[in-house]
Amino acid sequence: MTEREGEQRPALTHVDADGAVLMVDVTDKQATTRRATAVATLVTRPDVIDLLVAGELPKGEALAVARVAGIMAAKQTSALIPLCHPLPLSGATIDLAPQGDRVLVTATVKTTGVTGVEMEALTAASVAALTLYDMIKAVDKHASIEGIHVVAKSGGKSGDWIAE
Amino acid sequence: MTEREGEQRPALTHVDADGAVLMVDVTDKQATTRRATAVATLVTRPDVIDLLVAGELPKGEALAVARVAGIMAAKQTSALIPLCHPLPLSGATIDLAPQGDRVLVTATVKTTGVTGVEMEALTAASVAALTLYDMIKAVDKHASIEGIHVVAKSGGKSGDWIAE
Amino acid sequence: MTEREGEQRPALTHVDADGAVLMVDVTDKQATTRRATAVATLVTRPDVIDLLVAGELPKGEALAVARVAGIMAAKQTSALIPLCHPLPLSGATIDLAPQGDRVLVTATVKTTGVTGVEMEALTAASVAALTLYDMIKAVDKHASIEGIHVVAKSGGKSGDWIAE
Amino acid sequence: MTEREGEQRPALTHVDADGAVLMVDVTDKQATTRRATAVATLVTRPDVIDLLVAGELPKGEALAVARVAGIMAAKQTSALIPLCHPLPLSGATIDLAPQGDRVLVTATVKTTGVTGVEMEALTAASVAALTLYDMIKAVDKHASIEGIHVVAKSGGKSGDWIAE
Amino acid sequence: MTEREGEQRPALTHVDADGAVLMVDVTDKQATTRRATAVATLVTRPDVIDLLVAGELPKGEALAVARVAGIMAAKQTSALIPLCHPLPLSGATIDLAPQGDRVLVTATVKTTGVTGVEMEALTAASVAALTLYDMIKAVDKHASIEGIHVVAKSGGKSGDWIAE
Amino acid sequence: MTEREGEQRPALTHVDADGAVLMVDVTDKQATTRRATAVATLVTRPDVIDLLVAGELPKGEALAVARVAGIMAAKQTSALIPLCHPLPLSGATIDLAPQGDRVLVTATVKTTGVTGVEMEALTAASVAALTLYDMIKAVDKHASIEGIHVVAKSGGKSGDWIAE
Repeated sequence: MTEREGEQRPALTHVDADGAVLMVDVTDKQATTRRATAVATLVTRPDVIDLLVAGELPKGEALAVARVAGIMAAKQTSALIPLCHPLPLSGATIDLAPQGDRVLVTATVKTTGVTGVEMEALTAASVAALTLYDMIKAVDKHASIEGIHVVAKSGGKSGDWIAE
Repeated sequence: MTEREGEQRPALTHVDADGAVLMVDVTDKQATTRRATAVATLVTRPDVIDLLVAGELPKGEALAVARVAGIMAAKQTSALIPLCHPLPLSGATIDLAPQGDRVLVTATVKTTGVTGVEMEALTAASVAALTLYDMIKAVDKHASIEGIHVVAKSGGKSGDWIAE
Repeated sequence: MTEREGEQRPALTHVDADGAVLMVDVTDKQATTRRATAVATLVTRPDVIDLLVAGELPKGEALAVARVAGIMAAKQTSALIPLCHPLPLSGATIDLAPQGDRVLVTATVKTTGVTGVEMEALTAASVAALTLYDMIKAVDKHASIEGIHVVAKSGGKSGDWIAE
Repeated sequence: MTEREGEQRPALTHVDADGAVLMVDVTDKQATTRRATAVATLVTRPDVIDLLVAGELPKGEALAVARVAGIMAAKQTSALIPLCHPLPLSGATIDLAPQGDRVLVTATVKTTGVTGVEMEALTAASVAALTLYDMIKAVDKHASIEGIHVVAKSGGKSGDWIAE
Repeated sequence: MTEREGEQRPALTHVDADGAVLMVDVTDKQATTRRATAVATLVTRPDVIDLLVAGELPKGEALAVARVAGIMAAKQTSALIPLCHPLPLSGATIDLAPQGDRVLVTATVKTTGVTGVEMEALTAASVAALTLYDMIKAVDKHASIEGIHVVAKSGGKSGDWIAE
Repeated sequence: MTEREGEQRPALTHVDADGAVLMVDVTDKQATTRRATAVATLVTRPDVIDLLVAGELPKGEALAVARVAGIMAAKQTSALIPLCHPLPLSGATIDLAPQGDRVLVTATVKTTGVTGVEMEALTAASVAALTLYDMIKAVDKHASIEGIHVVAKSGGKSGDWIAE
């Protein structure tokens, strides 16, 4: 079973026979084009969303800050997640869709590499959402971030996959 | 209104009069003892929780990895969240409570500094949860991280606060 | 003579009697409020400035990216400049003034610390300008960054100072 | 038009149709040998140059510090410049030529990768110059860094190029 | 002579003809599978080893922390060692063998790249040992780390090699 | 018993009652001036030492590179050693004494902070020694780093201490 694709056998891949954690050996895996998309949702109040999008921010800089933070975090994924392999990212986009009392964050990351980029997409979406949280926390103590998960991936041995 | 405590006036604190983002000036704030606790929940399947906790991991190293990742991420918060001030953390703990189909991650961070440490606690909880996600993603493509929010903070001008 | 203020005696402060470099001992210096402002100028063509500011960027995100990059770089100064002391920054702003064929970048950084923050302001201004350069390099190979220097500082033993 | 080579059409490459910034998708670009050379000039006083080169520094360590700082910064470029792709650098040199009242910094960076290395060369030259500035700022408040620009690049679709 | 393999001619490879240091140009080297194993030994007292392994640590978390620290440090090697090339690590394991008054740390690192990974293995072993030291320093001021060296490498032009 | 000074009771300080690791709470400790000195020894051959010091390095840049690497690593200690507190270093020096077949590395680090700086001094000495190793590994596969330990510390509750 390979590191990132398998789901057939219920076993953790980041531990050896003795239970010690490791960075899995992917030396023999093929470098292919891979893509992953993950989402996160910042939940707050409608009036806070107004502030973020329009109110005091004619230039929309708040959203730009979150976008930049997400892209930069994608590049730092292997320094944050201990057992994650370093990957040469070949592209990253962060889409921010404010609506009602929330902002839906969608991060898409691409690489030509030997492992998938789910963790990079998840990290990008999480940090973009945390950055939005940082900017609104003074006006909403009760905000939360919900539903961080992978919605699609392609490339690698397991082929394309979209969350139903 | 100060940066991290205010909630009286609905205005974003990280933008100036022209709408440009900035790292807020906290030079005149008092350095006091501050603490924040935040949570995140990894949601997966009961059999995956078994793997994480006991199955193949007699040493419990999977949880230790997440704990370490969360503590280290707390220290990197100001490098990840663009407008966050650097703070000299004086303590950090990550509690991991596996139960049923999920793991509740609780991060508590302390400082003697001029701003609160909510972002540090949120970042620690998020990265610990992402690290758990990384270790189980090969056996559960449908896992998600839910309910990232602050549950308590103390210190600073706004005094103690616990989420109801 | 102290590290950052002196100018009376023409001697380098980052080397010992044997000529070996070191991070100067500032243990006995007083932590005071300090501020520094530095500038950098990106020089390109008027049509490129139009693109940056208005043309394809209705949201002005290009400028926001440079602003964020400058603020984040200010926080990384002691990791980039080998003999620079780590300082707890208490505020940072990046002003971007596009006009004619150029953008004037002005970075202001504050701390309550034992050394001045000139290097933080200079690093912030430089990285903000490099970030603008990155975004326009596909349309102008001949751009350059000019005039990086400190324009004002306050706090510390040497008192306030403004470049004539 | 590709990301780093084009100059035919005056359009910014780091923004999508909606004006949102992104890290451009270079997945389909060919990895080729690429090289870029950039310069920066530290301008100070002749007596300060003497100090840097000979006076109190028999071992020339001041120049070595700047060289090391430039090389290390080249490797951090994608962590500093938000929309820059990570690249596996295959070589880096920093030449420092002191003369009269200035030091000419020339950085050359190489990679086998999918984008050019102009930003790496520019970042290396800038940080080496900032490091020199840090070491002389106690003896010259009026120093500046001038003329940061690319002087030559090779590899990639646009072929070789030397600034006239 | 290539950078990492040669031993025929006694010359340093990280300096040019003028004695200036540089990051050696490895652009023309072949990317091949490479592996290196390095060791380090933490020397303390038997009762301290008991504490590390069993006493207060039913979960064995102390060893897990050191393992994680070593793996993460391997990924940061090129940011720590100035003239070291960045490499895409494809695997890393840290074995910790406590016995008597010491812990033998063995780090194995793999890559498909253009230079060897001795420095990555050495850095991983060193940081894992330093992390153990950090956890015991309150109970043993006299601990030390001994015998950091490469014990085996394979791949690259010089072929396989095992320390006698 | 406090974190860094105690030695009376044989117990690990980085674990809680349940055996989970944590970053110890030092919020209530006094910030005082603290200093630590640590050493490391690179062991190689006399002819290699000649190369490092004089042979091809008229400018002595090899030693300067190691010095810079050690100083920069001291500043990164809390990012490398997972349970280490971030500290505002107020000074750092690296002394390199080549003699016979070895180089003795001595790192001294100072802070005004709430914990000791032994780990910073040990990390600085280790990384400086690893940097020397990197520069000689092409001419000596059998080099090793020995005797990394603390030789003196001052400040904090336990008072001054010198290894006998």
